[in-house]
Amino acid sequence: MRHFVFTAALLAAGPCLADPLPSWNDGASKSAIIAFVESVTDPASPDYVTPADRIATFDNDGTLWAEQPLYFQFLFAFDRLRKLAAEDESILTSDVLRAANAGDLETVAAAGEAGLLEIQSVTHAGMTVDEFLAESRQWLATTQHPDTGKPLVTMTYQPMLELLSYLRDEDFTTWIVSGGGIDFIRSFADDTYGIPPWQVVGTEANTVYAVGEDGTPTLSKEGGVTFIDDKEGKPVGIMRHIGQRPIFAAGNSDGDFAMLEWTTAGDGARFGLIVHHTDAEREFAYDREGHVGVLDRGLDEAAGRGWVLVDMANDWRRVWPDGE
Amino acid sequence: MRHFVFTAALLAAGPCLADPLPSWNDGASKSAIIAFVESVTDPASPDYVTPADRIATFDNDGTLWAEQPLYFQFLFAFDRLRKLAAEDESILTSDVLRAANAGDLETVAAAGEAGLLEIQSVTHAGMTVDEFLAESRQWLATTQHPDTGKPLVTMTYQPMLELLSYLRDEDFTTWIVSGGGIDFIRSFADDTYGIPPWQVVGTEANTVYAVGEDGTPTLSKEGGVTFIDDKEGKPVGIMRHIGQRPIFAAGNSDGDFAMLEWTTAGDGARFGLIVHHTDAEREFAYDREGHVGVLDRGLDEAAGRGWVLVDMANDWRRVWPDGE
Repeated sequence: MRHFVFTAALLAAGPCLADPLPSWNDGASKSAIIAFVESVTDPASPDYVTPADRIATFDNDGTLWAEQPLYFQFLFAFDRLRKLAAEDESILTSDVLRAANAGDLETVAAAGEAGLLEIQSVTHAGMTVDEFLAESRQWLATTQHPDTGKPLVTMTYQPMLELLSYLRDEDFTTWIVSGGGIDFIRSFADDTYGIPPWQVVGTEANTVYAVGEDGTPTLSKEGGVTFIDDKEGKPVGIMRHIGQRPIFAAGNSDGDFAMLEWTTAGDGARFGLIVHHTDAEREFAYDREGHVGVLDRGLDEAAGRGWVLVDMANDWRRVWPDGE
Repeated sequence: MRHFVFTAALLAAGPCLADPLPSWNDGASKSAIIAFVESVTDPASPDYVTPADRIATFDNDGTLWAEQPLYFQFLFAFDRLRKLAAEDESILTSDVLRAANAGDLETVAAAGEAGLLEIQSVTHAGMTVDEFLAESRQWLATTQHPDTGKPLVTMTYQPMLELLSYLRDEDFTTWIVSGGGIDFIRSFADDTYGIPPWQVVGTEANTVYAVGEDGTPTLSKEGGVTFIDDKEGKPVGIMRHIGQRPIFAAGNSDGDFAMLEWTTAGDGARFGLIVHHTDAEREFAYDREGHVGVLDRGLDEAAGRGWVLVDMANDWRRVWPDGE
C-alpha cells in the first residue's frame, strides 16, 4: 500500500501528466511553447541548452499585466503629481504637467514620450529609492483600475504567470525587460511574479549617493532619466544586466521588436512570443493604433520570423487570476 | 561496513569538521568572517538573514586578483593600442595615447582617470561585444604578468576564492562590483570565480544596437563611457543591478569606501572587509600612495566602523592558487 501511494504521488507530479499551462487552450501557441521547452531541456535533444543559458525575458506592460487605458506607472505618476501640486502648485511648470494635473489624458498622450518622461521626472524625484519603493507599494495596494475597478496587481495575465512558473520549473531564469521604471517594477515584481529585484531590467532614473550630516548614506532619485529601456534600448539593457543573449523573449508591442529580433537571431533553438490583444470582452482589443502598446511591425513580421503570435481571445482559456 | 563508509563520508563533508577557509591563518579576521556567516545563516540566531537577502559584493582589482603595477585591463588596453597603432598611427591623437603606445606609464599615470578613460575609449571600441569578449579571452589566455611572469588569470587570491565558495555554500549570492569594465570582467569571471555574467557590475561603455543590411543584429561598443562604477558610483551600480543593499562587501581601496559604507549602514548584521596589501614578499605592499588601489581613508576609519582589515602578510597562509 505504501508503495502504491508513493507511485501515485510520483505520477501525479510527473511532467508527462500535469499540464504546465492549464489556462492556455490546446492549439498551435501552447504546443509551440511546450515543444520548445522540451527541446531545450532534453539532454538527448540536438537543441539542448544548459540551465545557465536558459534565459527568458519578458516585457511587463501588456505582456504580464494590462496597460490600458495607460501604463499603470503613469496612473501612479498622475496621482503623485496631483498630491504634490495640491501642496505646491508651482511645480506645474509646463502645459503637459498642468494637463496631467487636470486629468486631461488627451493632451498628455499627445505630448508623447517626452511628455511622459517630464511627468515621471517631476513625480519620481526628490526622494530616496527606499521611500519611492514604499510609496509605490502603498499606492498599488490601494488603487483600483479606472475601468474595471479591480486592484491593479490583480490585472496580471494568468496564462503568463503559468508560463513564468513553467519556465522556472524547467530551470530557466525569468527576467523582466520593460520600458517602465526599474524601481517601480521592483516594488511589486517579487510578490506578483516571483521575480527578484536583480532580474528586473527597466528604464533607469538618475540616482545619487550622498551621506547626511549624521553619517547616514542614502541613494536618492534626483530627477532625469539615464537609460531608456525601450525599443533598441532593450537589447542594450539585456547586455548591461544579463550579459548574454536570451533564448526566449516575450513582448506585445513594437517596443519589444528589437528584443525579439536579437533573441531569435542567436544560434540554436530560440523562441519569440507576442501577446496580441484581441479580446475586447475579457481585456482590451488593440494593436496598430493608439497611445499605448502599438503593435504594427510585429504584426506584419511575426509569421515570417517564426515568432508565435498569441491570440488572447482564442489561445487563453482564462485571462485573469481571479476571474474568467 | 557500508554503513561505516557512509558515515565517514558524511563526517568528512560535515560543516563542523571541514575548514571552509584553509588558506586563512587562524586569527581575528578569519574568526570574524566565520562568526558573521554562522550568525546570519543560523535560523535560531537573532541576526538570521533569508538566503534571498544574502547578497555579498566584491571589488575585483586588488580584492580578488592583483592590480600592480597597473590594472590588468589597462595592460590589455595598452597591448590593443599598440596593435591598433601599428596598423594606423593616426589613432594616436593625444599625448596620453602617444605615451601609452610608447610604454611610458609615468605619463599615462600622471594623466589620471581621464587619461585612462581616453585609452579605454579608443581601444575598447569599434567592435561588437562578442568580438571584444573573444579578444579579451584570447589576450588573458596568452599574457603573462610583467613582473612575475605568471599567467594573469592565475594571479587571483586563493583565500578570496575560498571566501567566495564558502559564502555560496552558505546560500549567499556573490557579485563583483568593480571600477573595471563590465565586459572585460565578464570575459573571465565565470571561469575564474564561478560568477556568471549577470552578477558582474562594472563601468559601462556606450553600447549600440544595430541591424546590418543582411538583417543580422549586433551590439557594438562605440566608444565613450556611460557609467563609472567607482567610489560613490558603486552603491548606485549596486542599486541598478542588484536592487537591494548587500549584507557583505569586500574591497581594498578608497574606491570601495562608499560600497562598504552603504552596505554596513543597513539594519541587522553587516560585514565590511578591506584587503590590506602588506605582503611585499609574496605579493605587493602599498596603501596610502600610488596610482593604483590607494587605501587612505579606509585605513583610518576601518576600525571605527567595525570593518575587518585583512593583513595579507599575517592573515593569509597562502596567497596564490598555484603557489605560496
